Amino acid sequence: MKRNRPFFLISNDDGYTAKGINELIDTLRPLADLLVVAPERSRSGMGCAITADVPITCELVRKERGLKVYVCSGTPADCIKLAHAHLLKGRRPDLVLAGINHGDNSSVNAHYSGTMGAVYEGALHGYPSMAFSLCDFNPDADFTPLRPYIIDLVFKAITVGLPHFSCLNVNFPKCEKFKGTKVCRMAYTQWDNEFTKAKRPQGGTVYWLTGDRRDIGEPQEDTDSWALAHGYVAITPVTLDVTSYGLLEILNNVL
Amino acid sequence: MKRNRPFFLISNDDGYTAKGINELIDTLRPLADLLVVAPERSRSGMGCAITADVPITCELVRKERGLKVYVCSGTPADCIKLAHAHLLKGRRPDLVLAGINHGDNSSVNAHYSGTMGAVYEGALHGYPSMAFSLCDFNPDADFTPLRPYIIDLVFKAITVGLPHFSCLNVNFPKCEKFKGTKVCRMAYTQWDNEFTKAKRPQGGTVYWLTGDRRDIGEPQEDTDSWALAHGYVAITPVTLDVTSYGLLEILNNVL
Repeated sequence: MKRNRPFFLISNDDGYTAKGINELIDTLRPLADLLVVAPERSRSGMGCAITADVPITCELVRKERGLKVYVCSGTPADCIKLAHAHLLKGRRPDLVLAGINHGDNSSVNAHYSGTMGAVYEGALHGYPSMAFSLCDFNPDADFTPLRPYIIDLVFKAITVGLPHFSCLNVNFPKCEKFKGTKVCRMAYTQWDNEFTKAKRPQGGTVYWLTGDRRDIGEPQEDTDSWALAHGYVAITPVTLDVTSYGLLEILNNVL
Repeated sequence: MKRNRPFFLISNDDGYTAKGINELIDTLRPLADLLVVAPERSRSGMGCAITADVPITCELVRKERGLKVYVCSGTPADCIKLAHAHLLKGRRPDLVLAGINHGDNSSVNAHYSGTMGAVYEGALHGYPSMAFSLCDFNPDADFTPLRPYIIDLVFKAITVGLPHFSCLNVNFPKCEKFKGTKVCRMAYTQWDNEFTKAKRPQGGTVYWLTGDRRDIGEPQEDTDSWALAHGYVAITPVTLDVTSYGLLEILNNVL
């Protein structure tokens, strides 16, 4: 019986104590065996970063029937790499999942997202991978409306699979009831006023990362920005092949 | 006269003292005004990471005619963001350049590359952006064979421009004489044996990031991996739009 249960590898970038990852664990525990490898603290904004300069640590902090939780000193990408190298012990995960992130990972935010970093890493190792984010930074955000959507997407991803070198970036708008799901492309957005200058009490200037995200032009109906602004769950398929094939053709004529 | 000189914003991920970035500065100084904003220490493997949790600092350490060098405590992406927000002072860079990196940033390495993180950031802000990497980790590597290629590419990029939301990832093979340039797509590769387990003298286990990169199948002639293995300079056009349009169509039929 147990052998037939699905097996999911889970990480996040808000750290293992965050409400979001624990909601994901509680949602999926009845359905699958779970291996959780999550950062020991918030590693938001880490993107695909890996820890190249110092060794990392990894400790088992929770072990129950069908659930193991490891806490790792590295980045989200490190967590998945380490699971792949040392913790899976030959059992192939049916899915790699990350989140639920406290905050929006749509449009250009995806590049900075540690949640997406974990999911890229899963996809790089050939596992079907999916990131979940709620557009609400509140550490006590209400994740319950997401549950049926997550269960539905997880089952569909297992059944249909995902092509090699691709993954899904799923963002939920901040609202009580979603209008449905939309398959989207990533919107082109930009950040302005990205740093706030401040004086250090000890003297000298420091810069705090802040910023305002701005749409480039009116968000178009096929984008994740539009879907979220209109109450839809935005499902953006992502490729790991970042080659610009359009530019490749142009360059072949120029260079 | 000075007003007509091109103006380049430069960063890297090996830190401002690395030989590679100083080679880039020396190569381009005769041709352009340069604003350099580089990390204070090596930030390899940072990808697009940004510093979200602590404020960053930025100090002017060198000022000569047509050259300013700032040292920043943040990541490569932070360096470009900070330059954009506070250091450009209204002067638009003709190019954002990163490198020359000590080490290979081709194929999947591009996802982890802080050099590429700087260049992504330039492209996100709408500047034509280009990363240079030499497939040689030696801190004293010989960069002189790269000079004519860099000058040529820089002039072509200024003249032809680059489409919005795209950038170039240029990798040089480790050899004395290059066979020429090849416009490439990113190869699909994978890392194996990514962590080496070790004992900490104080007790407990730690994991060092190591690993072996492996081609998935035989590298194909149109890839960066193939070009580098055969002595060509690999020029890979990169898009910031990571949407998988192929998968988008499939999902629209499934979901």
